[in-house]
Amino acid sequence: MDYVKAATDTGSETFIPIADRVATFDNDGTLWSEQPLYFQFFYAVDQIKAMAPKHPEWKTTQPYKALLENNMPELMKQGEKALLQIVATTHSGMTTDEFDTSVRQWIDTAKHPVKKKLYKDLVYQPMLELVKYLQANNFKVFIVSGGGIDFMRAWAEDVYGIPKDQIIGSSIKSKFDYNNGNPVIVKLPELEFNDDKDGKPVGIQRFIGRKPVFAAGNSDGDLQMLQWTASNKLKNFELYVHHTDSVREWAYDRKSHIGTLDKGLDEAIAKKWAIADMKNDWKVIYPSDK
Amino acid sequence: MDYVKAATDTGSETFIPIADRVATFDNDGTLWSEQPLYFQFFYAVDQIKAMAPKHPEWKTTQPYKALLENNMPELMKQGEKALLQIVATTHSGMTTDEFDTSVRQWIDTAKHPVKKKLYKDLVYQPMLELVKYLQANNFKVFIVSGGGIDFMRAWAEDVYGIPKDQIIGSSIKSKFDYNNGNPVIVKLPELEFNDDKDGKPVGIQRFIGRKPVFAAGNSDGDLQMLQWTASNKLKNFELYVHHTDSVREWAYDRKSHIGTLDKGLDEAIAKKWAIADMKNDWKVIYPSDK
Repeated sequence: MDYVKAATDTGSETFIPIADRVATFDNDGTLWSEQPLYFQFFYAVDQIKAMAPKHPEWKTTQPYKALLENNMPELMKQGEKALLQIVATTHSGMTTDEFDTSVRQWIDTAKHPVKKKLYKDLVYQPMLELVKYLQANNFKVFIVSGGGIDFMRAWAEDVYGIPKDQIIGSSIKSKFDYNNGNPVIVKLPELEFNDDKDGKPVGIQRFIGRKPVFAAGNSDGDLQMLQWTASNKLKNFELYVHHTDSVREWAYDRKSHIGTLDKGLDEAIAKKWAIADMKNDWKVIYPSDK
Repeated sequence: MDYVKAATDTGSETFIPIADRVATFDNDGTLWSEQPLYFQFFYAVDQIKAMAPKHPEWKTTQPYKALLENNMPELMKQGEKALLQIVATTHSGMTTDEFDTSVRQWIDTAKHPVKKKLYKDLVYQPMLELVKYLQANNFKVFIVSGGGIDFMRAWAEDVYGIPKDQIIGSSIKSKFDYNNGNPVIVKLPELEFNDDKDGKPVGIQRFIGRKPVFAAGNSDGDLQMLQWTASNKLKNFELYVHHTDSVREWAYDRKSHIGTLDKGLDEAIAKKWAIADMKNDWKVIYPSDK
């Protein structure tokens, strides 16, 4: 609140013109949970299961076999190429409208295997409040996530109150098809942009064209975004969400298989960036805890 | 005005919720002039001339030789590869900040060889008014141009009143460099995205994530954007600017080497899209004509 006051007080030397009030938030692990696997991967798993009756060959073909048998150790053993195959199968070969409809149906009904809640209810109440608070002070809030841009846009506008065009993420290629006067855009099985690590400042420059004055993340994948923000000549604020609550959420950092926070934690401490200790700083984690 | 009234009247069956009021404008030939060459190419020419003293070898090397000798026929004979080389020389190998500074200096001082006015004064007054009118009615206005995204963002925010993150264009690749704690983004000599023709709806989907309800262009390069907009189930409006004024601006359409309007003109007539006849419909072309 001190930062926002210093940024918005027209009499202050640290006043920031409205056009420069750009705030960027990571999504997985920063705005909603990401354990035991990125939620977008659960979407892919659910889609494979729904598609399986039309693909009897998957019963004997990896990586589908392992997935359909819920054999996660075997699935992980298949490696990154197999995971990309699952993503390609579930995220391409359809129009953007069809994909959007599919994600919307899933987000409205699918429940997290551990928390037994809708995925969209596993968002962080303090971060929702932070987004709203910044917006109320004329900050333009963006999501800058390694997650899929089309996946997030299907639900994040409603859930976070952030417009679709302010949601940036990883993407696969797509093509326009005039389709005899009923034009569609078709999603292709080829990576276009990986919005993680070095990719985050690059994505910010490409989509926003302006260096943020505020950035929030939770992992080493967000470090470059925070470094980029910290290099702003205008007064800036860097925040790391630290997952310290093994009871209400999950506790993990330096050695986690997802959302590793190691170099980032060292740099945050060295540079005195803000660190939100979920266990001790947050009265409420999820909106339903209120 | 009938369209905007129908779109914003809450009692109307054609009412459009604010979040869906997306308007996309081409830039070259739609918001400012583009003859006898795209203005961004004049920028490249001016940069080559400024850089020439440090590159004595250019006096004898094509395509630089032709350019430095103002030998346009010879330069054109060098073909597309040579033009791309000139663009790469002047648009990459520097940081995004350095490029931005260079374009700003140019746009504030460089004059058009025929009109003898600043390039930024060769914008269309009626289109400026249209952009403002849509914005005043809660339309979110975007530029979707084949021109360079970083080139436009250096000046278009000020000149058109359209925020940088709502300016979409063609791009070259870039990379993040931590640079010992003074991070920069460096522009690389490799095409990333061509925001023209089929690329326009693809760019709209990638950057905006929502189909427009309003689109304006002036050439066949905008046709797919207008087709995409026309396929919106919400009430939509398509506009072609037709260059018909050889005295106050330029007159060209079906056979022009730049901004060709041929198939688009046929389709506009067949589908009764709006066509702005610059000679007969516009009292004023440039702001200085007022």
